[in-house]
Amino acid sequence: MENTQKDLEQKNKELTSKDYYFDSYSHYGIHEEMLKDEVRTGSYYRAIINNKHLFKDKIVMDVGCGTGILSMFAAKAGAKKVIAIDFSNIIDHTNEIIKENGYADVIKVIHKKVEDIGELPEGIEKVDVIISEWMGYCLLYESMLNTVIYARDKWLTEEGIILPDKASLFIGGIEDSNYNNEKLEYWENVWGFKMTSIKKAVNIEPVIDIIEEKHVVTNYHELKQIDIKTVTLEELELKAPFLLQCDRNEYINGFVTFFTYTFSKCHVPITISTGPESTYTHWKQCIFFIKEPLTVYKDETVKGIFKLKQNNKNNRDLDISIKYVFNGEISKVAEKQKYRLR
Amino acid sequence: MENTQKDLEQKNKELTSKDYYFDSYSHYGIHEEMLKDEVRTGSYYRAIINNKHLFKDKIVMDVGCGTGILSMFAAKAGAKKVIAIDFSNIIDHTNEIIKENGYADVIKVIHKKVEDIGELPEGIEKVDVIISEWMGYCLLYESMLNTVIYARDKWLTEEGIILPDKASLFIGGIEDSNYNNEKLEYWENVWGFKMTSIKKAVNIEPVIDIIEEKHVVTNYHELKQIDIKTVTLEELELKAPFLLQCDRNEYINGFVTFFTYTFSKCHVPITISTGPESTYTHWKQCIFFIKEPLTVYKDETVKGIFKLKQNNKNNRDLDISIKYVFNGEISKVAEKQKYRLR
Repeated sequence: MENTQKDLEQKNKELTSKDYYFDSYSHYGIHEEMLKDEVRTGSYYRAIINNKHLFKDKIVMDVGCGTGILSMFAAKAGAKKVIAIDFSNIIDHTNEIIKENGYADVIKVIHKKVEDIGELPEGIEKVDVIISEWMGYCLLYESMLNTVIYARDKWLTEEGIILPDKASLFIGGIEDSNYNNEKLEYWENVWGFKMTSIKKAVNIEPVIDIIEEKHVVTNYHELKQIDIKTVTLEELELKAPFLLQCDRNEYINGFVTFFTYTFSKCHVPITISTGPESTYTHWKQCIFFIKEPLTVYKDETVKGIFKLKQNNKNNRDLDISIKYVFNGEISKVAEKQKYRLR
Repeated sequence: MENTQKDLEQKNKELTSKDYYFDSYSHYGIHEEMLKDEVRTGSYYRAIINNKHLFKDKIVMDVGCGTGILSMFAAKAGAKKVIAIDFSNIIDHTNEIIKENGYADVIKVIHKKVEDIGELPEGIEKVDVIISEWMGYCLLYESMLNTVIYARDKWLTEEGIILPDKASLFIGGIEDSNYNNEKLEYWENVWGFKMTSIKKAVNIEPVIDIIEEKHVVTNYHELKQIDIKTVTLEELELKAPFLLQCDRNEYINGFVTFFTYTFSKCHVPITISTGPESTYTHWKQCIFFIKEPLTVYKDETVKGIFKLKQNNKNNRDLDISIKYVFNGEISKVAEKQKYRLR
């Protein structure tokens, strides 16, 4: 009996977190947003449609296929077979869409978690190409890269390729005290009441939003370059030093992260940046406000260590800490601040 | 064993739906949005703070208290005791907030579903006032009014009051073909592929968004007036005829619903409208696009029946149908369209 109770609780816990994840992709709005993100979907379009030599007669796997758009790109580019996998309920539509566009013979849709697929259909043992749009906020939010790695290790041939195959995470320093006040100081006086408990909680949540280029006050530092073909799960736990130099006399009241991703195997390699100076994407940027702003002079530097790992309880979430040291003419600060992206 | 399996499945189902509901209120963003909605929170502020005679020395219950803002309004207005109830995890902060503002003696926070509270604390048997902000999209989305009715029947004294105590749902006809195209026709050509399966699914989803006044092409018809003091659960299942008259030569390609709510017991009654001509609120409006637009002349009329009920499986969701008949000079249409607000 006790075992059953424990099993039940464990199962409930898993279900809740899992269902929440996949359920968030069963609404159409999120797919509409992703498909209408011209930078995102356009990059895959060009990488696939303009590089038919990578797909002609190949066996392709689409990890987290959603509406099936990338699978259809691959089929159109001449793939012999596309295995499209997703556990979200959007898959009911995916099947209809594949049929409607005449690809039912080429694209095989599987409604399972990638990790739960025992054998591939039609006696297929290996795939030549993996395509996946796994990138999340701050690059690694939702930890879908874990699944790509799983699929790669299990099914990709040695000379197989992954699209995209490179990604990098960057950090910079920002000044955006208006935004900070609106998000944080607001809780000091809510209709005449104090809600500092929420202020504290909000303070450890990175903010997903657009940072205008003019608010960036330092260079960018590349925290991590990921080679999707070879990266291991262990390497997704980041511990990266950074050094930022201020480009004017300013205040720094936060850090911004963004990522780039690259299709390096294309005839002409394609790199997309989701940074403040680039065209808007639905990934926006990820902002980490700090408790006390730094008063910085031009050319002064901020050193730090950026740590990131998946949360133990809910591996969609990211635990992030930023340690920063600043020995400026006016401010002298050594701080470590923890965040949770959820 | 079979029983255990069934129990497990049942438990999982309940947990998932329930957790999803309350989990959606554990993030701070939603509370920030509601608190910063000046129309919404301002109306409660005025109804409570400017009407101290309704609260002085009274026992008050706050159903779905969230951050506790309404409870603090009530305490500030002189309530003897406030019982603040919420099942969302925001309640951890609520306790802190109540303490921080010095109301720990007056406001008693209960972290339970209202329906799971056996007895009230401190020997309290009845309450004099119920305050609650239960209104959802299209007035009844999330079905929180059910809970207010439960609390009312169990704990409100006969001469007790509810704030707000009246609400009305309205319908009008709109022309917004650009928006419709963007939302629906988009799926006809997604990067060169057809996704009509999603188009069909999107078509039965009401859209929550702002409708500009200029897009409204008829009068409004009041579908239902709810007296919160007396309404029964059965009466929340609507079947309401409507008659709309066109105010210019136009097309009608959808309907819009919005609601008003009233604090009629205030010294000066307060009514808030969430309609297209009113100040923005986070409730926006609820839009129902129809399959074929009607070509209407000024003064022609559209008749119909608007039905609404809670979805059987997930009572947060609303099943809505709109039957409309139009015998115009050009168009002659008799249609019934079903929607699900989820």
